[in-house]
Amino acid sequence: MITSPQNPKLKLIRALQGRAKARRKEKAFLVEGVRLVEEAIAAKWSIRFILYDRTLSERGQKLLKKLRGIEVEEVDAALLKAVSDTENSQGVLAVLNDSQLLIPDTPDFLLILDQIRDPGNLGTLLRTAAAGGVDAVLLPPKTADAFAPKVLRAGMGAHFRLPIISMTWEEIRTQVTDLTVLLAEVEGGVNYTEASLKHACALIIGGEADGASKFAQALAHTKIHIPISEKTESLNAAIAGAILIFEILRQRGVQKNFPA
Amino acid sequence: MITSPQNPKLKLIRALQGRAKARRKEKAFLVEGVRLVEEAIAAKWSIRFILYDRTLSERGQKLLKKLRGIEVEEVDAALLKAVSDTENSQGVLAVLNDSQLLIPDTPDFLLILDQIRDPGNLGTLLRTAAAGGVDAVLLPPKTADAFAPKVLRAGMGAHFRLPIISMTWEEIRTQVTDLTVLLAEVEGGVNYTEASLKHACALIIGGEADGASKFAQALAHTKIHIPISEKTESLNAAIAGAILIFEILRQRGVQKNFPA
Repeated sequence: MITSPQNPKLKLIRALQGRAKARRKEKAFLVEGVRLVEEAIAAKWSIRFILYDRTLSERGQKLLKKLRGIEVEEVDAALLKAVSDTENSQGVLAVLNDSQLLIPDTPDFLLILDQIRDPGNLGTLLRTAAAGGVDAVLLPPKTADAFAPKVLRAGMGAHFRLPIISMTWEEIRTQVTDLTVLLAEVEGGVNYTEASLKHACALIIGGEADGASKFAQALAHTKIHIPISEKTESLNAAIAGAILIFEILRQRGVQKNFPA
Repeated sequence: MITSPQNPKLKLIRALQGRAKARRKEKAFLVEGVRLVEEAIAAKWSIRFILYDRTLSERGQKLLKKLRGIEVEEVDAALLKAVSDTENSQGVLAVLNDSQLLIPDTPDFLLILDQIRDPGNLGTLLRTAAAGGVDAVLLPPKTADAFAPKVLRAGMGAHFRLPIISMTWEEIRTQVTDLTVLLAEVEGGVNYTEASLKHACALIIGGEADGASKFAQALAHTKIHIPISEKTESLNAAIAGAILIFEILRQRGVQKNFPA
């Protein structure tokens, strides 16, 4: 049992809770709570190690007992609580290796999240993209780190099912050559319900504060907007993204292939 | 200038930051930050008083100087920070009187938020409802208090434009007699893109954890669901609500009346 705050595993966890830089250096990230650990296991994600404490639920204990070939270690409950990012850590966390899912060869739906800085919005957009069967999410430089703890929580497991890839705008440009690039604007462009959204596309959603960058503007073929009541100023970025993702699915009729 | 933590205005603010019960007893709620205070003023909301400190921005100072007939008082900055609910209080908060906007006589779009407990989701749903031109939002007993500080923040001013009314299920029943009651389900019912959503309706969105209550089930005429990829379990409640609200608007064609 780990009982020292100086334990190297706990030191690593404290680093991974912090800045994106530390996660990039360690080539790892972490998830907390039974549900996310369960999702990582179910996805056969590369797990560096799992720590738990005596407060872990019976369901969680059972989950860990079934594991083979993964390092699982008990920690003093106060120590685990101290390195946890959540109010209720559920007594379990896992350190996972970076391990990128691949973009399909001929994607027909990419999502580009540009200057999205709120971790809750970013995580919710990833969750919604996974639910919509989006092929991959591309993150240009000014967007928040998708593997920060709050983004992982809001993502509800999307990180294990959806390729989420940080890229320069140059790299993004080479990814979207065969796609119609749609840019969501707060105003201007085509009313999204009147735009033709059936073609293979890359949809760019801009950030809460600054909208989309000049790089996004330059890449876009078609600008679309969601008309809203004159009484309000704007939609939340995750809400706008979801409305557009599901309008694309509706126009394509692909939801018929989803389970009812 | 207020310099004592025992000042009755600060005591009131501490109470209003807390539980719904305190807000109900005082028949008041509070908003923080320049933007929400500005929205309250623009909506001619009944303002009990405004407190500010020396950290308030120039824009905020100007706003307060223009006010007539509203009590505005300076507070020691450390004291205002101490009673603030936000990390960055912007040096201004307002205590507002409960003052309910009225449901239109013949509403054609009511939103009922059932067992929504996450304040961020509730606020985002209110913001989205206002953006969608929903006539009123009805909150049955098991839903979070719409006037809690976090809900107000996520609402981004929706509270000043949209009737938001707590009701018993009996009262809700009398409100929806002339409406088609639609209930969003995680599965089952009609695919929402194939449902006819043009009629005057009340849309019920269930909560994150427990879905919709048995009262909602009993009231519903039509159950609808949003098909999602088999790779994911569910959509966030605010996201599901937004997709349905905007599909209703799309089918009705009302977005043509919104400013472009």
